[in-house]
Amino acid sequence: MIVPTHFCSLCGAPTSLRVPFGDDLPRFVCNACEHIHYQNPKIVVGTIPQWEDHILLCRRAIEPGYGQWTLPGGFMENGETVEQGAIRETLEECGAEVDITSLFSIYSLPRISQVYMMFCANMRDATFTGGGETLEAKLFRHDAIPWDALAFRVIHAIMNHYIDDAAHNSFSIHIGTILPSSDEPLASHAP
Amino acid sequence: MIVPTHFCSLCGAPTSLRVPFGDDLPRFVCNACEHIHYQNPKIVVGTIPQWEDHILLCRRAIEPGYGQWTLPGGFMENGETVEQGAIRETLEECGAEVDITSLFSIYSLPRISQVYMMFCANMRDATFTGGGETLEAKLFRHDAIPWDALAFRVIHAIMNHYIDDAAHNSFSIHIGTILPSSDEPLASHAP
Repeated sequence: MIVPTHFCSLCGAPTSLRVPFGDDLPRFVCNACEHIHYQNPKIVVGTIPQWEDHILLCRRAIEPGYGQWTLPGGFMENGETVEQGAIRETLEECGAEVDITSLFSIYSLPRISQVYMMFCANMRDATFTGGGETLEAKLFRHDAIPWDALAFRVIHAIMNHYIDDAAHNSFSIHIGTILPSSDEPLASHAP
Repeated sequence: MIVPTHFCSLCGAPTSLRVPFGDDLPRFVCNACEHIHYQNPKIVVGTIPQWEDHILLCRRAIEPGYGQWTLPGGFMENGETVEQGAIRETLEECGAEVDITSLFSIYSLPRISQVYMMFCANMRDATFTGGGETLEAKLFRHDAIPWDALAFRVIHAIMNHYIDDAAHNSFSIHIGTILPSSDEPLASHAP
């Protein structure tokens, strides 16, 4: 997945998509100053916010997945750690202050060049809110997760692992891939 | 850490560094088409290649850290999983074919906006080579790691955890941060 870079970010001249000397992948290279515009995967950081025996989910106010439920998370920013990013996104998406307890999952989404890194977290209090990219936030009991209204396959897979681990009271770190092919089995929730 | 983006990659017009509406961080925004040029951390993927009771290290042929030893790794590419990236980089950096056995460490380097993700891996055979970004590759016994000639603080920290875990024959996943401040203690190897 290559995002078009028609013009050089340094000098403004047109670019060409070609394989630079010593490289083996096509990149957008400036026709004038030869600057190479690399593109790399982005990290999505977020949390599974826990309050007593509930989990906090957010209903999305933006596409994709408008109106569907997701975990609070978003793109990691320059200059922060993965934990700082996850805590910041949780506060931004649903107004909840959390303390991270452990890493829970790392999922690669090669089709869209993203890596999801989600953490288990305890809410400091029962305060949360919607706003911005979130229509509403809501606490769900483990037996009342809106499985059919989760926004993304990766969120479904992560939630599935979480609820299974919670049922066994044994949390591990889950590493996986969401394959592009739609006929690949999506880990389904067995109630 | 913001990399200058003087011109819009879509239309070639000059940009300004400003906070877009609804955002709270400065971004390079096109003065003509309003396209926002986000910048996000990059993922470095790699392995700790094991062959019998040895680890394979690479001596760097490029700056930074020219002539010093490192683990095989590099920037994750679009369209691949973290595991695929780690295996590819190991082959590119030192000609070794490996099978990943587990995730070993995740380190945030907020000063340079990178996240290192390293995996334990078994070499398929004792084949390896230098070339490209590597002056030479070499197998080291656990008691002969060139601690004073490791290229980066993050590599030192990861190797330190690995050798400690190996001594106890108990490997866990290590999550940490390399802080910018030089007076922050670097985890030192206690032989």
